[in-house]
Amino acid sequence: MSASTDTIAVPSPADFHVHLRQGELAQLVTKHPNLKPPVTNTEQALLYRAQLHAIDPSVEYLMTLYLSPELTPDEIRKAAQAGIVGVKSYPRGVTTNSEGGIESYEAYYPVFAAMEEVGMVLNLHGEVPSAVATNTCVLNAEPAFLPHLRKLHAQFPKLRIVLEHATTRAAVECVKSLGPTVACTITAHHLSLTVDDWAGQAWHFCKPVAKYPDDRAALQEVVKEGHPRFFLGSDSAPHPYESKAAAAPTTACAAGVYTSPILLPLVAHLLESFGALDKLEGFVSGHGRAFYGRRVKEGGERIVLRRASRKVVAIEGYGAGTTHVVPFWAGKEIGWEIEEEPSK
Amino acid sequence: MSASTDTIAVPSPADFHVHLRQGELAQLVTKHPNLKPPVTNTEQALLYRAQLHAIDPSVEYLMTLYLSPELTPDEIRKAAQAGIVGVKSYPRGVTTNSEGGIESYEAYYPVFAAMEEVGMVLNLHGEVPSAVATNTCVLNAEPAFLPHLRKLHAQFPKLRIVLEHATTRAAVECVKSLGPTVACTITAHHLSLTVDDWAGQAWHFCKPVAKYPDDRAALQEVVKEGHPRFFLGSDSAPHPYESKAAAAPTTACAAGVYTSPILLPLVAHLLESFGALDKLEGFVSGHGRAFYGRRVKEGGERIVLRRASRKVVAIEGYGAGTTHVVPFWAGKEIGWEIEEEPSK
Repeated sequence: MSASTDTIAVPSPADFHVHLRQGELAQLVTKHPNLKPPVTNTEQALLYRAQLHAIDPSVEYLMTLYLSPELTPDEIRKAAQAGIVGVKSYPRGVTTNSEGGIESYEAYYPVFAAMEEVGMVLNLHGEVPSAVATNTCVLNAEPAFLPHLRKLHAQFPKLRIVLEHATTRAAVECVKSLGPTVACTITAHHLSLTVDDWAGQAWHFCKPVAKYPDDRAALQEVVKEGHPRFFLGSDSAPHPYESKAAAAPTTACAAGVYTSPILLPLVAHLLESFGALDKLEGFVSGHGRAFYGRRVKEGGERIVLRRASRKVVAIEGYGAGTTHVVPFWAGKEIGWEIEEEPSK
Repeated sequence: MSASTDTIAVPSPADFHVHLRQGELAQLVTKHPNLKPPVTNTEQALLYRAQLHAIDPSVEYLMTLYLSPELTPDEIRKAAQAGIVGVKSYPRGVTTNSEGGIESYEAYYPVFAAMEEVGMVLNLHGEVPSAVATNTCVLNAEPAFLPHLRKLHAQFPKLRIVLEHATTRAAVECVKSLGPTVACTITAHHLSLTVDDWAGQAWHFCKPVAKYPDDRAALQEVVKEGHPRFFLGSDSAPHPYESKAAAAPTTACAAGVYTSPILLPLVAHLLESFGALDKLEGFVSGHGRAFYGRRVKEGGERIVLRRASRKVVAIEGYGAGTTHVVPFWAGKEIGWEIEEEPSK
């Protein structure tokens, strides 16, 4: 990163966790993914990658498969040869389109052994389902998952694992305490929000939910520390207005915060707000690429950010007769913007 | 209470914490109160009571004043003579129309001494304001208030204090541990909801927010125990559709759950769901009246509940060009209903 007072150049920034959706919504949001049905084999992943390339061919899409009983050690080897980098696991029912998620990891040990062998990454949505009997709800679902992470890592110490979208001090401390094969993504919005922000505010509601102020502080601290195993995964997830504005009083709104259209300027803005602007390059590019083993291409794209005062507005035009997808930070100003022509 | 399998008769049920609002909204909801400006002296309270009587003269309204620097020991004595039963305290900014709430109680010690002397009740909204520096947010705002309650009770052991709308095990245990002058109201909706229910669901969002499953269990347990210092205060608070459906992505929706139109059947339904139907009379009538020193009138009204299967619907017709106020439990069935003609 080269930084002067007013511009920052970041080589090949990367988002290591983003939801691009399908169909009409993908057309709208890809430039700027949970899928139904889930992508459970190599053919489906390659087909989806081809669809995404048709929308924007300039992006390198790192594809993952969905952890399910269909997945075999053979399929893992086949997927690795086809360039698929990871497998994603959702606990049952805790997030959008994850009704088929896992309840116990032990059945997947042969799959994990094959992944360890071929160098594939396991991406974990680190929450257990809510359960009254164990006092588990959206607030403690992530800390309750951490023993599963510790156990998996002990069993497969060479398997690279990414704990996705950590939201708690407990998760940060757990990942730090584990070996170099365990990393963690952090979203932009979890660097900004606490529970007070999504209480009664549909557009700030996501899973995992934002937690206590001290949890947000832990996320900010580990970024400010420049810890190499913590990097950006936006978990950006667009939902149309109707799904968010809680039209029906008898249903909950869709979970997800949409940051893709403003991601890099927003992250710069947030990191600057807590004195971590000098860690931007590592957080958005270097750390994640190093963990995934993707080198920054010589002479590759560099994104230049410059100081600005840009108000975030809603995106119009999704779907027939409907309204819009409202991005995070709508109505507020961001202190950075991307220069129109990326410098090579 | 006389209970057979299919009917329950409750003498003079009472709601010891309800928001009736003002103006047009009061016209709509009173049959079935936070005010702007707050009611800070005797004249205002008597005027408001007269307005409420004009809407429904059959109800005995127990009026309270709002704790503010305007309130003096002399005003307390005057209010007590006029039949005003209590003083309500809101911490600054934590709930609807409470921007002028208190930050420290010590300035009010002369007022509390006068209240103790004349037998007036102090009603406390038991939450401290959110503060990043102390890791305080809507989830722990109530436990953080309890030391203030303990200190007040130690200072004024004969002052009757009601901790309003308790939501946590910590609050239940605190009130139980204090003397016979300290009581606690519980809402119907906090006997039903946890944080998972208001996550992304505007109509379930209220202050205090519903907490963990174990907190809800503590509320249910103390009702089931029939503890005489715990009784119903609905905190029922109607808000129009526009304030709830989070129309603007940049603002939070209004806090409040509206239970008044279904209150007694709903409470019966909920108490039955956790095996406490036999505690209904004490919870909705006896305990609160005893604490406030209001006797059940000889030959007074008895409400008879009978078994039913009633679906709760939204109330139409509030305001110009607007939609409706959606009550709690909308779309769900309640297993009890009130007999049309109350038996005398």
